[in-house]
Amino acid sequence: MKTVKLIVVGFGTIGKGTLEVLRMKHRDLLEKQGFDVRVAAVCEIDGSIVNDKGINIDSVLKAASSGKLKEHPDWKNAKSLEAIEVVDADIVLELTPGDIKTGEPGISHIKKALECGKHVVTSNKAPIALRFQELTGLAKKKGLKLRYEATVGGAIPIINLYRDNLEVNEVRSIYGILNGTSNYILTKMFEEDVSLQTALKEAQELGIAERDPSYDIDGTDTAVKLVILANSIMGKRISYKDINVRGIQEITTESLELAKKHGYVIKLVGDVNGMEVSPRLIPVNHPLNVSGTLNAIMLDMDIAGTLTLVGHGAGKIQTASSVLADVIDILKDMKEL
Amino acid sequence: MKTVKLIVVGFGTIGKGTLEVLRMKHRDLLEKQGFDVRVAAVCEIDGSIVNDKGINIDSVLKAASSGKLKEHPDWKNAKSLEAIEVVDADIVLELTPGDIKTGEPGISHIKKALECGKHVVTSNKAPIALRFQELTGLAKKKGLKLRYEATVGGAIPIINLYRDNLEVNEVRSIYGILNGTSNYILTKMFEEDVSLQTALKEAQELGIAERDPSYDIDGTDTAVKLVILANSIMGKRISYKDINVRGIQEITTESLELAKKHGYVIKLVGDVNGMEVSPRLIPVNHPLNVSGTLNAIMLDMDIAGTLTLVGHGAGKIQTASSVLADVIDILKDMKEL
Repeated sequence: MKTVKLIVVGFGTIGKGTLEVLRMKHRDLLEKQGFDVRVAAVCEIDGSIVNDKGINIDSVLKAASSGKLKEHPDWKNAKSLEAIEVVDADIVLELTPGDIKTGEPGISHIKKALECGKHVVTSNKAPIALRFQELTGLAKKKGLKLRYEATVGGAIPIINLYRDNLEVNEVRSIYGILNGTSNYILTKMFEEDVSLQTALKEAQELGIAERDPSYDIDGTDTAVKLVILANSIMGKRISYKDINVRGIQEITTESLELAKKHGYVIKLVGDVNGMEVSPRLIPVNHPLNVSGTLNAIMLDMDIAGTLTLVGHGAGKIQTASSVLADVIDILKDMKEL
Repeated sequence: MKTVKLIVVGFGTIGKGTLEVLRMKHRDLLEKQGFDVRVAAVCEIDGSIVNDKGINIDSVLKAASSGKLKEHPDWKNAKSLEAIEVVDADIVLELTPGDIKTGEPGISHIKKALECGKHVVTSNKAPIALRFQELTGLAKKKGLKLRYEATVGGAIPIINLYRDNLEVNEVRSIYGILNGTSNYILTKMFEEDVSLQTALKEAQELGIAERDPSYDIDGTDTAVKLVILANSIMGKRISYKDINVRGIQEITTESLELAKKHGYVIKLVGDVNGMEVSPRLIPVNHPLNVSGTLNAIMLDMDIAGTLTLVGHGAGKIQTASSVLADVIDILKDMKEL
């Protein structure tokens, strides 16, 4: 039995979800993978919880939920970059929210981790969308793994599925419903004949939409994810600025009603070949017609034909499933050494 | 560069599709996997094409299409069991159609291959549904791989996806639209308001339904596939005889119309927890509402939540994608040795 140590950078929704899932699956990882997986550090913006023998996950989650993280006995003033460098660990989980303009602080975290000889698993779209070649190149040069399943489609394991099981297929095109918030709004407008404003307000009240939902509504978030899929699955080298983006701002209940009358829905679709994110008419019985916050990703391949995956595009625990799948992928490689 | 030799047992639709795909992807396998994949034998019911250096795929496909296989210079009278034993090869592809009552000739082929130290990839449902424990146990004992992705859902890589990328999830239930013929018929009846007989006749004319479509219509085929999913993904030990099966024989256009009026469709659904195959009402915007010959498989998991895969459940080339994915999986293991 080997011990594997993780550093969790970023302690928001996904960071907490990941700790919960690690606690839930600790025994399973031990029995099935043969690894005692411990968390050596959890980094917040102003300091870190550090314990070389493995933090007590219960106590950290409890301290966080009562807003008393700094009173935890393992609290140190070491910030994330320092912790990534000095704490002894095998894998860094970079789970901070990304600034899509700069990619920071994710880019610095990932580079520091790789330079210090640590594998990286990230749920942070921005660094992967902005610096795909540079970061994957650095990982390769260092003989380390950089995994990013959680950046697109939440719990939908599309990137790993292609790499592990569909690699023989040439992917001709990718279409996706990649933003749960806008899909929730469109579904609500379509099914209940309410305005975009009303649907958005409800989404915010339910915690589905953020206070500033601009990137969800205007299509930017979909474009960023589309670029990650294009680069990692189709070997493209595009940036999200290359994508023509039109959001759902101007969709009206009238246009949805007209679509319905003819057997269609309107969905915000990302299309790699068209280099476009835009609202499109989709037949009601089409696999991309998914409702609520669900995401859907369709690959069109030379042998397998079309394959669509539908699942949860977000969610604390659901997204952690992809983070953990990436961790396990790295564990499997470590086992073979 | 290593040479890997295959024996293809069964030269029907899937056998031919597999040869076509191997021809198409030969160079790709060389460049990406580092293996020169050759076919050392193709076994038909009354003899085999054998060539230790690798058969000429073009000439064999050509001879088959003109019905002159026996005139091919590499034709031998050796039947499948003999060929599996004596021909030097690494992997046996068991692609015969299975007799769901006896599981033969697939069971004998698979056992012989494993006993002779050859890995097995199969598209044959019957042996896997009837003798799952025995056959996977034998493979394990021999240190060999037995892969069967193509037995369920054609090109949908559900079994490998779970094993490689969702293993950390406990699967609570599996639902599936697993039979393309019955789904085509139901879709036709629903959309065009035609009788089951009319829809079936059209499916037969299009080559979608077989001359004797009993197992598709009465739910047996769905039950067999459901059992394979239950045993391989949920660790159950059930036989298809344990499943309560009701087919689509009694579905009328009236019932479909009534469903439509209330926003539903009727689909033939396999349900592991209910141990049941039966026609069920599904909301039109539900991920399991897939049209035509498409298949859909939905997993309900403790962390990732629900994940649905929609794709081609059959097809000469599409099914070969799963066969080849299994071959590549074995190649990857061979590379590590």
